[in-house]
Order: sequence, then C-alpha cells, then structure tokens
Amino acid sequence: MIASDIERLIQLLARLPGLGPRSARRAVLHLMKKREALMLPLAAAMAQAAETIAICTNCGNLDTHDPCSICRDSRRDRKLLCVVEDVADLWALERSGAFKGGYHVLGGTLSAIDGRGPEQLNMARLIDRAEHGDAAVGSGTSDAPAVKVEEVILALSATVDGQTTAHYIAERMAETGIRLSRLAHGVPVGGELDYLDDGTLTAAMKARRPA
Amino acid sequence: MIASDIERLIQLLARLPGLGPRSARRAVLHLMKKREALMLPLAAAMAQAAETIAICTNCGNLDTHDPCSICRDSRRDRKLLCVVEDVADLWALERSGAFKGGYHVLGGTLSAIDGRGPEQLNMARLIDRAEHGDAAVGSGTSDAPAVKVEEVILALSATVDGQTTAHYIAERMAETGIRLSRLAHGVPVGGELDYLDDGTLTAAMKARRPA
Repeated sequence: MIASDIERLIQLLARLPGLGPRSARRAVLHLMKKREALMLPLAAAMAQAAETIAICTNCGNLDTHDPCSICRDSRRDRKLLCVVEDVADLWALERSGAFKGGYHVLGGTLSAIDGRGPEQLNMARLIDRAEHGDAAVGSGTSDAPAVKVEEVILALSATVDGQTTAHYIAERMAETGIRLSRLAHGVPVGGELDYLDDGTLTAAMKARRPA
Repeated sequence: MIASDIERLIQLLARLPGLGPRSARRAVLHLMKKREALMLPLAAAMAQAAETIAICTNCGNLDTHDPCSICRDSRRDRKLLCVVEDVADLWALERSGAFKGGYHVLGGTLSAIDGRGPEQLNMARLIDRAEHGDAAVGSGTSDAPAVKVEEVILALSATVDGQTTAHYIAERMAETGIRLSRLAHGVPVGGELDYLDDGTLTAAMKARRPA
C-alpha cells in the first residue's frame, strides 16, 4: 500500500552505492520531511548536473566544460601527468592540493577476471598525450604548441590489478623516454603502526629515510 | 577544482541519512556513469514525488491522495487502529501483511530530552479519532456514519520514550472504554537465542505459551 511514486523513488535510490532498500526508505522519508529544503533542490541539482556535466575528452575528468577546467588552467604544469583510475581519485588528489599538473583518468584498471583490456580504458588517449604532448587547450588558439610531457606519475591502487595496469603503461611508454614515477608506499600520516598490514610496514621500512 | 554543479549535488546528497561526504561522492560518480538509466529517472521521480506526495490529514501516512489509500480502503477494518511512531513503521507493518485495520502515525515519540510534548506529535487527532470515530472517508458521502474505534494497538518502540508515549496514550484514553493492546515481546522469528538481549529473553520466558 505504499504509493507507487514513493515506491519508485525508493527503488531508484536503492541503486546508489552505499544504499540498500532499507536505507533508501529512510532517505525517502527524510526527503519527504524536508521537501522544500532538500528534496526539491536535490531533484533540481540532479537534473542540472545530468544536463551540464560532461566527460573531458582530453583527460576523462567530469566538468561542466570540455576540456575541463583543470585541462584549461594555464597555471598548471602540463609537463607533469598524473594517471588515476577514477574521477574519485582525481578529486582526492585535488583535495590534498599536493599536485598542480595535469591528470589522466583511465576509468578503471586492467582486469583479467573482469575482462577489461586496454580498449575498455581511456588508454589510447593516454599514450597519445604522452607521445605527442598536450595541445595547449586553455590558450584558445588551436595552433599553440603542444606541451611535451616529461613525467608520468602512476597514482594507481596498490592492488594486483592496479599494479598490472602500471606495468602495462610502463611498457607502452618504455620508448618515449618519459620519466615514470609512482606514489610512495609507507605509513599513513596519523596512522598507528599496530593497525597497519605487513606489506605496508615492510615497504615503509625498506624506504626509510634519515630522520 | 570540482565543478560547482557536482559539488552542490554532493553536498545535498550528503545530507541524506546513511550518506556522508565520502559516500555522497561515490554516489555522484555512480550517477554520472548511469546518467540515462539512473540519474535522470531519479531526478524526475524525486521532483514528481515532491509534487504529488502529501501527508494524510486523517492518519499521517504519506500518499498521493489525501485521505490516503489506506484510510479510503473500505475493505479495511476501521474498528482497529494501530498507532505507530513513523511512516517507516507503517510500511514495515504493511509489508508483513499482518494488519488490516487503520493506522495513526504520531510522527515521533514524547521525549523530555528532545523537548517533544504531545503538541509536537499528531496526538490530538489520535484522541479525536478514538473518541469520535473515523468518518467513513472512503465512502464519498460526508454524512456517512463514523466508525467507532474498538481497539487501539500501540505499535511503539520498546524504548523508554516509546513506552512513555504508550503510557500517555493509555491515560488519555482511559475513560473512552476503548481496548488498548501492544505488540508482543519475544524471540524474533529466525532469531538465535544466543544473540538476544536479556530483556527480550526474560519477556519471552514470562510470556511462554503451551507448545
């Protein structure tokens, strides 16, 4: 006896990651109680984002512009190219403020089990950017000289699939002469040793530095 | 450098119960990947529900009609009135199919700590329904005789606030001669004794029945 409009909203919300049928029901009741303050703005923001957000054809980021605002930002150092699996990783790096170069979003990792090969990823465009450099997409003039990429930073997950992907990219780029690097392994800042896995501790010990 | 449209969507989603900033970001990325299949339908369903769903002025349920479809259903036994805290509880009872009477949604419990008195709840309407009966809202004729409520079932939480609310209702109804009942305590069906709290076990033992 739940109204079909509510039932439909619950079913759609339950398809979001992190929400199941039960939490979707709770969310719908919360939305109903905050109709003006939350439900209508959320519906509008969702429709708006669906309309305006596009994938950047240069790097794979999500933005209201294509190329995205990172690709068009002339203050960023396009000699550095940071390869990430997903837009979420790009956001995480942007939040940290630790990187001021360009990004390349692969859209996943190679995976034998899931049948994801290089064709399923944004890989060809990465090789193209690395070999031929980025056109200066922000300058507005299409005949501006391409910026040569000097270093590719592989910010991929420390999982089997992530490392397979990193190896694949390293092999493909072996002849370009581009410097390859990866993020350091070690103890997370604020992390307690007691809770760390053996692999991380071993990596941190091996890469120890003078205090 | 996250586009403001995305940022706004994340902030709004993060206000749903069960979602924080992190899971809201994941949800937004998922929505972006399923734009046609999920994001646009969800935006539309949310706008639609915000427009059409109203609180039933009779019982407090949420529905596209007022009075709601449960109140208007002439097959339901309006001599029975089940009092619940929230619409979620009404949905749970409806899913079970165990009850075919009318409901009354209080919208919460009395709470000294949170400063919720009877005025903050849908209490006056409950007393009114119990004392004067429900008008036959489904019949379409406003002069149809009101149905006398014979039993009020208090399906409230087995918490201090829930039981305080039950006591309050019982006192208010003491002179109406209406039969009051509450849900049975006991071992959940499919539950393992080992995982049950002492209070539930004690209640189940006291209320034991011939096998």
